[in-house]
Amino acid sequence: MQRILYELKGRGDLRFSPYCWRALMALAHKGIAVERVPLNYTAMPEKLNPLGASAVPVLVDGDNAIADSWLIAQYLERTYPDRPSLFGGPVGEQFAAFVNRWADRGLHPTLMHVIAHDIYDNVDAVDQPYFKKTRETRLGKSLEYIRRDSQATAAGLTKILEPLRAQLAAQPFLSGAAPLYPDYVVFGTLQWSRCASTFPLLTADDVLWAWRGRMLDLYGGLGRNAAACDEVA
Amino acid sequence: MQRILYELKGRGDLRFSPYCWRALMALAHKGIAVERVPLNYTAMPEKLNPLGASAVPVLVDGDNAIADSWLIAQYLERTYPDRPSLFGGPVGEQFAAFVNRWADRGLHPTLMHVIAHDIYDNVDAVDQPYFKKTRETRLGKSLEYIRRDSQATAAGLTKILEPLRAQLAAQPFLSGAAPLYPDYVVFGTLQWSRCASTFPLLTADDVLWAWRGRMLDLYGGLGRNAAACDEVA
Repeated sequence: MQRILYELKGRGDLRFSPYCWRALMALAHKGIAVERVPLNYTAMPEKLNPLGASAVPVLVDGDNAIADSWLIAQYLERTYPDRPSLFGGPVGEQFAAFVNRWADRGLHPTLMHVIAHDIYDNVDAVDQPYFKKTRETRLGKSLEYIRRDSQATAAGLTKILEPLRAQLAAQPFLSGAAPLYPDYVVFGTLQWSRCASTFPLLTADDVLWAWRGRMLDLYGGLGRNAAACDEVA
Repeated sequence: MQRILYELKGRGDLRFSPYCWRALMALAHKGIAVERVPLNYTAMPEKLNPLGASAVPVLVDGDNAIADSWLIAQYLERTYPDRPSLFGGPVGEQFAAFVNRWADRGLHPTLMHVIAHDIYDNVDAVDQPYFKKTRETRLGKSLEYIRRDSQATAAGLTKILEPLRAQLAAQPFLSGAAPLYPDYVVFGTLQWSRCASTFPLLTADDVLWAWRGRMLDLYGGLGRNAAACDEVA
């Protein structure tokens, strides 16, 4: 059966989309192999619109095409119930949903302000005008203004990350003794920063650093094998 | 067997402690009746220190005395496993822990800045000097400064509450079809505001308002029967 994950690619094939990382880790957790097909932003409409989608990640699983990382996670959990559970039961799915919403609405907008200009530098050159126009509209500010303001915004991140640090001070993963989808949600965010920006979000004495190290090692180093942006010429 | 919950009382017996509300709702969820013993801040050391505690809520359950709302929830879940589960399993306990940490470290500090002066007005008169001194030290600002600044702080609450609103737009409770401990955590926060402040945190068109209404109705109107501060002469 044909299985494809359409992903975002940046400069030099950097893979930094937080939503694509959620889907990649969910697939690895389920032990489902996919062909990874990278697309830059401007190539997406031609490839994805025929699948009824407009943005990555898109999972093609035989006759099914599923867009949106959260819907992909739900699809995998319902379609492959005999594989390791992503949620750990119905209340665990509520946990995953809450962390997903908290990340998308709290963590991501703040981090986006810190790394937006770095992302601009690391999208494919052909995508830069599209990225600049859409993100400046969404954020209501120029990327140049955001870069000048990024130190002040970064201070707010410390407070936003506090609940994660408290959870990880008590146990190895956000979900307990082993990773579940809430871990993949937040890991996606950290890969976004690691693979698209040189901003020093974490330092080595941080419980989040240690946790990210454990996450980078999972599934044969799937996350660690992805180039960080300062490793790409 | 003797069962007592020591609680905070304010002016005219107002009960607004968010942590006491978590414990009260957890006990009601488990169907465990307690004698509720109100204490003002300055009466706590004499009553609680002999129990090995310094702050409410404190649950006395026969020979056991448990302080701290989170430890009370864990104690109830482990001691009364045949009663309705507060967490819905081990991953559900992680969900509850995360919401607890998010509320304590993200939501509470911001809301505290908005309602701190109202709380001061609604603690027992004998507690006011203690409250003012400890909270001004903790917050690093005078209560008068905080009151002047509360409108600006309130704007930040909208963003913090977004993950809750998204979760509740999809389902009746934060935990799904029925309330679990994550709901009691956030309900405690809203009772804090409702019973200690006249700040209009919610309006009737808000999904959080509708959810709070369902929470106020639980267990024979346990929450609704608590006086709001503008109902106390």
